[in-house]
Amino acid sequence: MPVSADQGHEPVITILHSDDRPKHLDGPNVRFVTDETLTAALPGTEVLLVWDFTSTAVRDAWPAADSLRWVHTASAGVDRLTFPALLGSDVVLTNSRGVFDVPMAEYVTGLVIAMAKDLAGTLDAQSRREWRHRESERVGGRTAVVVGSGPIGRATATMLSAVGMTVELVGRRAGEGVHAIDALPGLLPRAEWLVLAAPLTDSTRGMLDAAAIRLLPPRARVVNVGRGALIVQDDLVAALRDGHLAGAALDVFEREPLPADSPLWDLPGVIVSPHMSGDILGWRDELEALFVANLDRFRVGEPLENVVDKTLGFVTSGELASPPTRTGSAR
Amino acid sequence: MPVSADQGHEPVITILHSDDRPKHLDGPNVRFVTDETLTAALPGTEVLLVWDFTSTAVRDAWPAADSLRWVHTASAGVDRLTFPALLGSDVVLTNSRGVFDVPMAEYVTGLVIAMAKDLAGTLDAQSRREWRHRESERVGGRTAVVVGSGPIGRATATMLSAVGMTVELVGRRAGEGVHAIDALPGLLPRAEWLVLAAPLTDSTRGMLDAAAIRLLPPRARVVNVGRGALIVQDDLVAALRDGHLAGAALDVFEREPLPADSPLWDLPGVIVSPHMSGDILGWRDELEALFVANLDRFRVGEPLENVVDKTLGFVTSGELASPPTRTGSAR
Repeated sequence: MPVSADQGHEPVITILHSDDRPKHLDGPNVRFVTDETLTAALPGTEVLLVWDFTSTAVRDAWPAADSLRWVHTASAGVDRLTFPALLGSDVVLTNSRGVFDVPMAEYVTGLVIAMAKDLAGTLDAQSRREWRHRESERVGGRTAVVVGSGPIGRATATMLSAVGMTVELVGRRAGEGVHAIDALPGLLPRAEWLVLAAPLTDSTRGMLDAAAIRLLPPRARVVNVGRGALIVQDDLVAALRDGHLAGAALDVFEREPLPADSPLWDLPGVIVSPHMSGDILGWRDELEALFVANLDRFRVGEPLENVVDKTLGFVTSGELASPPTRTGSAR
Repeated sequence: MPVSADQGHEPVITILHSDDRPKHLDGPNVRFVTDETLTAALPGTEVLLVWDFTSTAVRDAWPAADSLRWVHTASAGVDRLTFPALLGSDVVLTNSRGVFDVPMAEYVTGLVIAMAKDLAGTLDAQSRREWRHRESERVGGRTAVVVGSGPIGRATATMLSAVGMTVELVGRRAGEGVHAIDALPGLLPRAEWLVLAAPLTDSTRGMLDAAAIRLLPPRARVVNVGRGALIVQDDLVAALRDGHLAGAALDVFEREPLPADSPLWDLPGVIVSPHMSGDILGWRDELEALFVANLDRFRVGEPLENVVDKTLGFVTSGELASPPTRTGSAR
């Protein structure tokens, strides 16, 4: 039976936010909290909306969760929530799958073309009022390997194909049009562009290390819109410094905001963006609407959408997932 | 009958170049000249290859052309060659249609997405090691009006559609999937993106003036990869300054290189690039191969490809065009 509110009972909802908070959610059963006040608010909370998806406070506050049934995060990645206590509990975890897919595909496609056309060099010359003609690269006919066969990876692969690239999509398991992750070492030597759009799990952490980078063709470029920890940063920096890699577009980092003393900020060919690839104007409204739709399901006992498979660390299908059996307690 | 070399006679070819010159063309009948030496070389020249397509020297040297039959330009646009004396002559004019189409479509698509995602703002923040999260725009579902229904405009329209935009293609005459230019005023109010990829002719010169800009929706953006003079520059600058336009990506200008004192260099939202949108690595080889293939046709009397309709100022079809009757003299 799906997780749901007790009949005739309005669930207690706690919203973990920072500067920004949802616009339309309010009411006597809604508690707005920040990292500092989360622990005090958790007792009695049945639904936790992690609106500030960059927060790591849930893990520390977890022991105070005595009534929790459902945690929803306003992000696609759930790595900040897949700590053992939550994973071992009956609490259902849902994410915001679907909001970011096509915006992120657009972002990756734009960045790939902008790098091929050296837009950074153009803007640099422009800032000095310098007319500096260069020849640039085609993207058509070039090979991109996209790692991550969830909605973001698939949308990205589709759009890169649409602009003429040869795309190889890599997922956890082989499927129609998807290579299994085991095939990746064989694909990397052809990856003129390597796009990381995978969730961060135990098996993807550090997947792009010195050994994997060495398999890439000389002057390959890397785009990371997944999670910073997919890449061993020191290995990436070394390969950019020695010129084996021609560049990288990095939207995610192990530490965010990226510390001001990081070497990534001014490495040649590197574009550092502030974890914004999926964040289009209006995205917060979309995220809120997605949570509210799930909340409506929760209230009437319908299965929730975007339920994360806690053994895998991501949603396994675009279909309605069957959540774990309803329980009275989160502990 | 097609223009051709006299049988058994190797035509005298003059190549107008600047710093760069074709790599494989050479021989006793080939004359390499620059702007300064063109007039002296023209007498006896039967074929003129305008390799330096930015040159305006042909017009001035024209009276010296006593044997010219064919002028080929290493560009798509032919506006620097459509002066009255050439237009009124029997000399066949061909261009390099086909080399630039898809590279330019890639360029426009990349620039559109990069502007929607504010890549310039990202690079600017990066240069100060500043983590500055912003929300950005979708391109999917937005409307782009592409002016120019030649191969460049069509390739651009196709690729913008492929990334999810609604595209209206405008040409001289209506056709399948093409609006006539008369329809443009009715389309401009929907043009969130206006892409100019038209040839410069008497009827397109200054087409984007204050009146046309006023028809665009507020915060529209303009991309020009056609010719600078398609736009009334002062009107564009005014609309960018008063904020009616949100930005422009300009790859072509009335004067190239763009003078260092032009206001365009540092207007907000404007990307100035040095006429490079079609110039991919290897493009010069492609241009040379295209000329050589036409030269082989010329030698044996086959119809030339990419013959410019001199009354229109561009090639009218992707099919083999029928060149004017062979004549013995260029005058």
